Amino acid sequence: MKVVVLAGGTGAAKFVRGLVRVVDPRELTVIVNTGDDLEWWGLHVSPDLDTICYELGGLLDPQRGWGRREETFHCRDAMAALGRASWFNLGDRDLATHLFRSEQLRAGVPLSEVTATLCARWGIASHVLPMTDARVRTIVTMDDGDVPFQEFFVHRRHAGAVHAVRFEGAAGARPAPGVIDAIHEAAIVVIAPSNPVTSVGPILAVPGITEALNTTAARVAAISPITGSAAFSGPAARLMAMRGWPTTAVGVAMAYQSFLDVLLCDAGDAALGPEMEALGVRPVFTSILMSGTALAERLAKETLDAGAQ
Amino acid sequence: MKVVVLAGGTGAAKFVRGLVRVVDPRELTVIVNTGDDLEWWGLHVSPDLDTICYELGGLLDPQRGWGRREETFHCRDAMAALGRASWFNLGDRDLATHLFRSEQLRAGVPLSEVTATLCARWGIASHVLPMTDARVRTIVTMDDGDVPFQEFFVHRRHAGAVHAVRFEGAAGARPAPGVIDAIHEAAIVVIAPSNPVTSVGPILAVPGITEALNTTAARVAAISPITGSAAFSGPAARLMAMRGWPTTAVGVAMAYQSFLDVLLCDAGDAALGPEMEALGVRPVFTSILMSGTALAERLAKETLDAGAQ
Repeated sequence: MKVVVLAGGTGAAKFVRGLVRVVDPRELTVIVNTGDDLEWWGLHVSPDLDTICYELGGLLDPQRGWGRREETFHCRDAMAALGRASWFNLGDRDLATHLFRSEQLRAGVPLSEVTATLCARWGIASHVLPMTDARVRTIVTMDDGDVPFQEFFVHRRHAGAVHAVRFEGAAGARPAPGVIDAIHEAAIVVIAPSNPVTSVGPILAVPGITEALNTTAARVAAISPITGSAAFSGPAARLMAMRGWPTTAVGVAMAYQSFLDVLLCDAGDAALGPEMEALGVRPVFTSILMSGTALAERLAKETLDAGAQ
Repeated sequence: MKVVVLAGGTGAAKFVRGLVRVVDPRELTVIVNTGDDLEWWGLHVSPDLDTICYELGGLLDPQRGWGRREETFHCRDAMAALGRASWFNLGDRDLATHLFRSEQLRAGVPLSEVTATLCARWGIASHVLPMTDARVRTIVTMDDGDVPFQEFFVHRRHAGAVHAVRFEGAAGARPAPGVIDAIHEAAIVVIAPSNPVTSVGPILAVPGITEALNTTAARVAAISPITGSAAFSGPAARLMAMRGWPTTAVGVAMAYQSFLDVLLCDAGDAALGPEMEALGVRPVFTSILMSGTALAERLAKETLDAGAQ
């Protein structure tokens, strides 16, 4: 059974960890947000691609949820001593990924091919695709002007009012090779419990992807990143409010309304069921907390089951 | 008293360690070989500049004589796991230097300015100048063709017959800002105990530098990198033979004959004295072994004394 996941970083990686325990990893395609990619110390960094690949390759640090296991930060500290910005934490092992990628990109190799090479070297059987090979950048408009996503998310720790979010370059971007086919060939497309605005939003903004989701024969399921009116982590609720969506699972259903069949929500949100059904979305109330591999595996299985109905 | 040193890497760093204990570091200018610079993992690496700067900044690993103290190599190992060449050992802390330099060079900042910035950040009071801001590459012709210097020196561990050495780009290069003035303003110019062919040779190949040495009012002293007929380390003797020079201190005197006043040689080489004098070079026989800072300091003092006579 072919499965596609639309993914941001940390939350999506948790779900994928469970998913590869209940599907054949070779049948899994993960389409990953690259809107929060950045140039750092002259290197091209793709935080969400790396988080997903590190998870699938068994390299992800399980405590932090980003970066590599048993990581050190000696280069970062030496950069700080040279007076360079060091708030974006690139580890020493992690640097190899960015050096490898940057050199290939500079030589004209598309991001999707570089990602495939990295996956092959790390022994990853699943297919990991960037949403696009084009440059798309998530830009956040704050009181003091526009800032790139990582500046907002990491450096400012997502503090401060957000007036707008846009995906620079998305309108002219094309889906990476394989993205549209994967969506059409899947039995189920799962939208990971990622931020609907800044993690999944950039993917949906690449022309052709939302259309493929609207027209695929696959069932489309999502896992809510929100319980009650609070996100598991990060600024999802505030950003959803900025979009005019309720900061509940109902808002998640609205974000994906045009193509969403099933939404897995927290059991405590059962009262919201009728609102979701009114949007044409079937809610499944369960435990969506993934504190550990066993819970992630159970949620993955429930998601596939819900999609099969 | 203003002192200029012409320097390669490891041997020169040992001498400089002694020298800054007997001269005011602010009066010292080190002009450094960049012929063995390389692009590695997409970064610009300047091995000799780094060795000298790390020494002056108290960052040099004292055992290896290259790279930084208390270094780790996690990025290199991760690169090897990705199938990338890893024979040139860039440490994790060391990477910061190359990332910093590469980003600045890509932005159009000349190497000499980047080096000055690095020195300032590391609290180095001496002046460290690359021989040129232009791209010069030492190329070694071997049985199987031309190889860049580091490929010969590090990857092949300087094994194999060498038929020629050339300095690509040197003929069109200009000395870096400050190089010619420093040579003219110095009381003494010291040629460090570096390989005359591949460490000092590239410096002398930059048009204007040999002329400045020929015409400066400064005394010019050199320390032989050879005792008897063996170099302290590396392929100096073989490369000197290829140039047609004797593989003794006499060969060193011949390499620098047009400007050399004094040559510090091993006491065991006293029998070679008349040959050196016949070349117009005054030999000083002493202990030129620098196994430790105290010996390096004594040799530096003797060099300055010899130059003052």
